[in-house]
Amino acid sequence: MTTARAPLSVAAAMDRAVTLAANGPAYGPNPRVGCVILGAEGAELGEGWHRGAGTPHAEVAAIADARARGVDVRGGTAVVTLEPCAHTGRTGPCVDALTQAGIAAVTYAVADPGNASGGGATVLEERGIPATLMEHAGASALTHRWLTAMRLGRPYVIAKWAATLDGRMAAADGTSVWITGPEAREHAHGVRAEVDAIAVGTGTVLIDDPQLSARAGGEDAAHQPLRVVIGHRDTSGRRVWRDPNVLGVASHDPRDVLAALWEREVRAVVVEGGPTVLSAFLREGLVDEVHAYIAPVLLGAGPSVVDDLGIGTMKDALRGEHVNFQPLGADTLVIAHLSRGF
Amino acid sequence: MTTARAPLSVAAAMDRAVTLAANGPAYGPNPRVGCVILGAEGAELGEGWHRGAGTPHAEVAAIADARARGVDVRGGTAVVTLEPCAHTGRTGPCVDALTQAGIAAVTYAVADPGNASGGGATVLEERGIPATLMEHAGASALTHRWLTAMRLGRPYVIAKWAATLDGRMAAADGTSVWITGPEAREHAHGVRAEVDAIAVGTGTVLIDDPQLSARAGGEDAAHQPLRVVIGHRDTSGRRVWRDPNVLGVASHDPRDVLAALWEREVRAVVVEGGPTVLSAFLREGLVDEVHAYIAPVLLGAGPSVVDDLGIGTMKDALRGEHVNFQPLGADTLVIAHLSRGF
Repeated sequence: MTTARAPLSVAAAMDRAVTLAANGPAYGPNPRVGCVILGAEGAELGEGWHRGAGTPHAEVAAIADARARGVDVRGGTAVVTLEPCAHTGRTGPCVDALTQAGIAAVTYAVADPGNASGGGATVLEERGIPATLMEHAGASALTHRWLTAMRLGRPYVIAKWAATLDGRMAAADGTSVWITGPEAREHAHGVRAEVDAIAVGTGTVLIDDPQLSARAGGEDAAHQPLRVVIGHRDTSGRRVWRDPNVLGVASHDPRDVLAALWEREVRAVVVEGGPTVLSAFLREGLVDEVHAYIAPVLLGAGPSVVDDLGIGTMKDALRGEHVNFQPLGADTLVIAHLSRGF
Repeated sequence: MTTARAPLSVAAAMDRAVTLAANGPAYGPNPRVGCVILGAEGAELGEGWHRGAGTPHAEVAAIADARARGVDVRGGTAVVTLEPCAHTGRTGPCVDALTQAGIAAVTYAVADPGNASGGGATVLEERGIPATLMEHAGASALTHRWLTAMRLGRPYVIAKWAATLDGRMAAADGTSVWITGPEAREHAHGVRAEVDAIAVGTGTVLIDDPQLSARAGGEDAAHQPLRVVIGHRDTSGRRVWRDPNVLGVASHDPRDVLAALWEREVRAVVVEGGPTVLSAFLREGLVDEVHAYIAPVLLGAGPSVVDDLGIGTMKDALRGEHVNFQPLGADTLVIAHLSRGF
């Protein structure tokens, strides 16, 4: 039995699919995907979204939703935010599920660049099912980190720090508690809860002894990212090791770190410092996004957020793009995406 | 002949007086002041504002406005954003003008802390004219810089800089053109046009050879602040000296600079750098407001915006209050007021 709904255009169905996609988790090996199945005249036959690795993909969830409603999807159009996958991972290929369900056409918003998972549109076309790309800014935004990771074959890297107006991460004696206020710290915990891993150097572990957990309102978030400690120094006995979900990478090469994370299906990592680690990632062009929490504070001395990056003159500066701002109490968050892939 | 107007409460008249005050110039030795004269039953008899040093004060302008309308202000209430002055400066005392005009009561929003000009309310009361303080946030905001200057007996100091996310004012080779974008630079010119003086060190003059003019949309603004060059090095022949309105102060002591400016009736000065000059003012607690234009740029090397301020640990950091933010293109302006009077 179906409930009467207003008919949807394909574009409106894509908007709906994007809204559904956003219900999925931001972390994890798979992207957030939503799907709406349209019948003749724009009837909405089923809808679904991907709830995380090991659960059905959005297309399969939407077909199941239609079945649960007792609706026949044969001849319908699947409107999905990402190109249907063509491979068997934890679940079977979506192109097969769509074919078997008798779907007659597919519209998708983002092409899948995955070596294994991509190519679904071609498979569908070969089976006589037209697969049409219809770009959607919301779908791009929801998959931006995942897409970048898949294209680069390494986790998406967010470099995060809290600094003073004069770019210091700490005072001359190493103290840094607290540069920013509670609003900024709460925001940073929200960012942690949306990624797969948080990485710091052994220096930060030894000096600050952080828990590296994602907290919200003082409580541990439901999703805790992998804690990663980079470097050679002994940090055993520090708080970060109390959690079993910790990875030590005994290297100073950020490529080693990212390779170790990629093996663990990490798609997005927040690199939180200190300056040595941040600078190593920046110097190698391995930062995709910067989150700079800036406090209205001056120190005049103490470590700068980044060490020498090999930049000698203004025209070679690393310049952020697609910059966003967010006031957080007395602090400002500047988010910048970086064109050199940093 | 009067035009019919809706009757005003004293509070509404104060709102109106604040709006009028804002018509006046932000620069100059005198504050922005507005005045509304109310008759019986809230009739608006006259209004005026101060248009700058040497022109009538707001109260006198309002009385003149009433006269021009052929209206008798005797028995009226003067609602004025600042306590009427009690001294003869470039013009006569407003308390006398009000008394002579037969004003029966005065309401003012901000007390005048001036040694010479203050005390008007007491004089009025002694003459049997009740003078009532009614605070108004708008009136306070319009007079904030002037009031601070009068209380401290020195110009209000705005420390302004453009910096990267890592707190650099220039790259390792000294280049700094351009850290920030056109929106930030245009905003900074707007700030220059609202103050009495702009100060830089000889180092900035020698390296950047700035014009130090206030420009708007590429054109020179109507009001040009005094250009001030701080330090001992020879900067003759540089562009700043093409204008006759330049002051050289051969001292490294910010107190000498502020004393020289105070003599010239400077009430607000923008100190624009470089790091040596900015740090000298900050170190001495002589900065009232910071304007930090922050570009989404990383350099990793180059001069920091401030040198050593004698701060060794986080709890001694200079921490801004009443912080405001303004996105300007890809840059952010952070405005912070500083509790230690810096």
